[in-house]
Amino acid sequence: MRMNTSSTDRPRVRLLPKRHRRIKAGHPWLYSNEVVMTPALKAMAAGALVTVENAAGELMGTAAFNPKPLVVGRMLSQGPDDAIDAEFFRGRIVKALALRSRLYAEPYYRLIHAEADGLPGLIVDRFDDILVVQLNAAAVDARSDAIVAALQAALQPKGILLRRDTPARIVEGLADAEDEIVGDIGDAPIVVRENGLTFLSDIAGGQKTGWFYDQRDNRAAVAAVAKGGRVLDVYCYLGGFGMNAAAAGATSVTFVDRSAPALELAEAAAAANGLADRTTFERAEAFDFLDRSVQAGARWDVVIVDPPAFVKSRKDLGAGLRGYRKLIRLASRLVAHDGFFFVASCSHNVDDAAFAEQVRHGLTDAGRNGRILRAAGAAADHPVHPFLPESAYLSSMLLQLD
Amino acid sequence: MRMNTSSTDRPRVRLLPKRHRRIKAGHPWLYSNEVVMTPALKAMAAGALVTVENAAGELMGTAAFNPKPLVVGRMLSQGPDDAIDAEFFRGRIVKALALRSRLYAEPYYRLIHAEADGLPGLIVDRFDDILVVQLNAAAVDARSDAIVAALQAALQPKGILLRRDTPARIVEGLADAEDEIVGDIGDAPIVVRENGLTFLSDIAGGQKTGWFYDQRDNRAAVAAVAKGGRVLDVYCYLGGFGMNAAAAGATSVTFVDRSAPALELAEAAAAANGLADRTTFERAEAFDFLDRSVQAGARWDVVIVDPPAFVKSRKDLGAGLRGYRKLIRLASRLVAHDGFFFVASCSHNVDDAAFAEQVRHGLTDAGRNGRILRAAGAAADHPVHPFLPESAYLSSMLLQLD
Repeated sequence: MRMNTSSTDRPRVRLLPKRHRRIKAGHPWLYSNEVVMTPALKAMAAGALVTVENAAGELMGTAAFNPKPLVVGRMLSQGPDDAIDAEFFRGRIVKALALRSRLYAEPYYRLIHAEADGLPGLIVDRFDDILVVQLNAAAVDARSDAIVAALQAALQPKGILLRRDTPARIVEGLADAEDEIVGDIGDAPIVVRENGLTFLSDIAGGQKTGWFYDQRDNRAAVAAVAKGGRVLDVYCYLGGFGMNAAAAGATSVTFVDRSAPALELAEAAAAANGLADRTTFERAEAFDFLDRSVQAGARWDVVIVDPPAFVKSRKDLGAGLRGYRKLIRLASRLVAHDGFFFVASCSHNVDDAAFAEQVRHGLTDAGRNGRILRAAGAAADHPVHPFLPESAYLSSMLLQLD
Repeated sequence: MRMNTSSTDRPRVRLLPKRHRRIKAGHPWLYSNEVVMTPALKAMAAGALVTVENAAGELMGTAAFNPKPLVVGRMLSQGPDDAIDAEFFRGRIVKALALRSRLYAEPYYRLIHAEADGLPGLIVDRFDDILVVQLNAAAVDARSDAIVAALQAALQPKGILLRRDTPARIVEGLADAEDEIVGDIGDAPIVVRENGLTFLSDIAGGQKTGWFYDQRDNRAAVAAVAKGGRVLDVYCYLGGFGMNAAAAGATSVTFVDRSAPALELAEAAAAANGLADRTTFERAEAFDFLDRSVQAGARWDVVIVDPPAFVKSRKDLGAGLRGYRKLIRLASRLVAHDGFFFVASCSHNVDDAAFAEQVRHGLTDAGRNGRILRAAGAAADHPVHPFLPESAYLSSMLLQLD
């Protein structure tokens, strides 16, 4: 524990008695009911730096403060005097980069995954020399210039796209803002490389950062059972799952999405990978397509459903869980005897156990049973902070059905 | 639902009202408090076949009955008249074999993983033309002849080793018995192939079936971060984790185990894989070795601890959890700055959440923090029955530590 001296004149945030233990152990969040709230703190600008001290006045470190949300403090450093500048961010980025360089052969990955990489609320996805940044907390929103400078120092990217339009910002009390481009992000679409394949993404116009690297390993796992099979990829977006399956030797892959631009990019990716001969693309709403296919008695050897989050907030939980159950009921009916079924949830509010329960319910509704071959979350470039297990938002299962 | 007619004269087991739903959906177990217990049922021989009917007398299928344990019935078939003979077992085995043949390039894997493969209590590990069988429930213990005949019909193995000495048998009221060998299992040690490497195992004298295929993917994941690093593999047994790391480019691997025969086989495997130049072997108790290494201030870039089950039964839970916490505290202290730490629990009574909590506690005790790169269970040849999530006994984490 440090002495009660600090060379900075940052405001102090005092923790209530006994509430320092979690922070000392490395938990990155201060909750509003754990600190001595004062009028001065309540009036602070979102994202301003504070020095955190325990109930005895001993210094705990540096946090970014935001009086609005439940999470009022985001720990940035255990040092109470650390400058939170471009050099600070560069250090964290270089460390995260070293990990990804060890994990992946090509420079395509999630470079920064927020708290788990020591940078609360910051997401950076790398597409070789183009970076897409999400500023999801006041702690980083207020410091985008330093973050951009740090990214430039660490990676010399050709272009950086900053996005300020994510749902996480609402909780932080941050307004949406227009995309900001630093340097040159080129003309859409850009190239994405994953598992040895080429994809195309419109990073400015597409979903989230433009590619879901979190499913990288799950796509490989599905591909590993797809050889010689007919594959259905529903909610295919840019074709990630189905293309991995086609490249692994699936005889045919049907891609379904309601977005015409996404399907066009998926079709272009099929051509780029020399897989146009075995791929077909259908524009449809997922539930409509599944309903029609069940009615028609269609079957595929591998069925993949990777939907967007059905549960966006706690109040949607019941309806969202029913949505997963229905999706699983319909999709599992389309799986051939001894075929394979992959389903995922990226809803933060649906944990692994709740997801597994919907899988059981949906299979029961469909009169199907089988075995779970793999239950997995996101790939290793989306690390989880040990003290934030609830941040592991992705649940997925690969099953073989009887 | 079938009519109340059956061509067999098997005893009937009647379910209590509403207790048939789970069974109809595909749950493989009947609990003692769900059935109408009669003196005749109580007197039945363990493993005898029964016809299961719901409270209205409609037939639900065929089960093996055992009046002793909490799980009195193990569903074998939804058909009430199905013969449970060699042909029945052969069908299930062929189906499981087709799945493994799809998953793995070489004939080394868990071929049958009990309920998830439709064969309650039966474990079969395959080492090319040698099979090691565990008979863990009366349902299969009483039918070992039919199972052997089915394995021979499906795989023409050179030899089959039947083991009747597992802890699971105690719950079933089954006595331990000597190993039984059918055909020729050759001279110890036999060859095991995994992830392109060669290992050696003494299947008759070693632990469980002689090899832990469940860690196959976890070994590959640890190896993927080991290049250029100094690796410590504690509880190394036959060298699985460390050898994968050495083959992936670790500069040195120290293997630690208290079993001299296991270390000898690990050392022989290092030679067989051309990795003798970078591997060292030390016989020691794990906690002693860890304690001494902490005292000496030793550090490794990758530390692996894959202990035996610390929690063998519910009454050991508290002590076992403390054991994991202590293990994690000691081992994590040996991890270099920005190095990697793998830890696993194969205790049935420790679920993922309890394991994650001990990881947090142990890291806090050691003053370490970091990020979880992977949280995973067993490989796909150890499938999980959707209705028996508690059977997913293996928890593991790969972390990078600051």
